[in-house]
Amino acid sequence: MNEAAPSSRDRLIAAAARLFRQRGYHGAGIADILAESGAPRSSLYHHFPNGKADLGRAAAEWAGAGMLRIIDDSFANAPDYATGAATLCHKLAKFFDISDHRDGCPVSSVLYEDTEETGLRQAVDTIFEGWIAATAAHARRLGVPAEKAGEAAETLLMAIQGAWILARARRSSDVLRSIPGRLPEV
Amino acid sequence: MNEAAPSSRDRLIAAAARLFRQRGYHGAGIADILAESGAPRSSLYHHFPNGKADLGRAAAEWAGAGMLRIIDDSFANAPDYATGAATLCHKLAKFFDISDHRDGCPVSSVLYEDTEETGLRQAVDTIFEGWIAATAAHARRLGVPAEKAGEAAETLLMAIQGAWILARARRSSDVLRSIPGRLPEV
Repeated sequence: MNEAAPSSRDRLIAAAARLFRQRGYHGAGIADILAESGAPRSSLYHHFPNGKADLGRAAAEWAGAGMLRIIDDSFANAPDYATGAATLCHKLAKFFDISDHRDGCPVSSVLYEDTEETGLRQAVDTIFEGWIAATAAHARRLGVPAEKAGEAAETLLMAIQGAWILARARRSSDVLRSIPGRLPEV
Repeated sequence: MNEAAPSSRDRLIAAAARLFRQRGYHGAGIADILAESGAPRSSLYHHFPNGKADLGRAAAEWAGAGMLRIIDDSFANAPDYATGAATLCHKLAKFFDISDHRDGCPVSSVLYEDTEETGLRQAVDTIFEGWIAATAAHARRLGVPAEKAGEAAETLLMAIQGAWILARARRSSDVLRSIPGRLPEV
C-alpha cells in the first residue's frame, strides 16, 4: 500500500494536468481524468478528499513546478538575461510543437473555476508569482539592475501567456519564438 | 414570430458570451446558458442546429465584434498610436474592473474546445487576426511605418491576452494598465 498509494496519486495529478492542457479545467471531467490516469476511483477521494478542486490545485502546482524547472534550465547556463529569455521561449515553443500545436497552459486554465472558496485562484496567483520571482532572480544574477528585473520578468511571463493563446489559435509556435524580439531590451 | 425569434437568438448569444467570460467554454453548460438567457430550449436548436459549438462560435464572434468596436473607439480620436494603445488598455482594464476583477476573454476560452471538426479554433483565429488587422490599420493611419505596424499590433494584442490572465490571477487590473510602458516604442 505504501508503494502503490503515491503512484496512483502521481498518476492522477499527471493525467489531470495533461487533460487541463488539452481541454481546460472544466473540459476535463473527473471520469476523464480517472480513465486517463488508470487509477481506481477510490484513490481519487483518498488522495483528494474535496475531489476535483483539490486535484486541480495539485495538478496546477505540479505543472507549475515543471515550468519553474524549465525557467531554471533556460537561465542556468545563459551568458546574459536576453539569451536565457530567448532559450525559455524556444523551449516552450518546442513543448507546444510536440503537443501537435494544441495544448494550453494547465495553470491558467484553472482560473475558470470561479469560486473563491476553493482557493484555486489564489493558488494560480502563487504559481505565477513564483515563475516571475524565479525569472527576476535570474535576471539580477545575470546583471539586470535590481529595479528593472521584476518588471522585465513580469513582462516576459505576460508575453508568454499571451503568445501561447495566439499560438493555439494559429496552431503555430512562431509567435512564441518571436517574443524576445518584441520586448524592450533590459 | 419574426420579432421574437431574433430576440431569443441574441439573448442566447449574449448569455453564452457572459458565461464564457466567467467560467470558460466548457464551464458554461447548455442548461446554464438557457437559464441565463431566459430563452426556451426549443429556440436553441432552432437557431443553432449543431448546439453548443454553433452557439459558441456565434458568442465568440459577437464578443469579437465588441472588442473590435473597443479597438476602433480607442484609436478613433487618438493623436498617435501610443495614445490609442494606452486608451485601449485602460478601457479593457475598466471592463475587467466592472466584472469584479474576474472575467476572462470569452473568445480565447473557446480554444479549449479541442476538436477541429467544429471549426471553432479557426473561428477564434479569424477573430484574433481581425483585431490585429484593425489595430495595425490604425497604427498605419497614425503614422507607424507600414513594415512595423503589423508586428506592433500583434505584440499589443498578445500582451493584452497575457496581461488579462495575470490580472485574473491577481484580481487586479493594474497589469493591464501597465502594458503601454512595457512594450517598445513604435
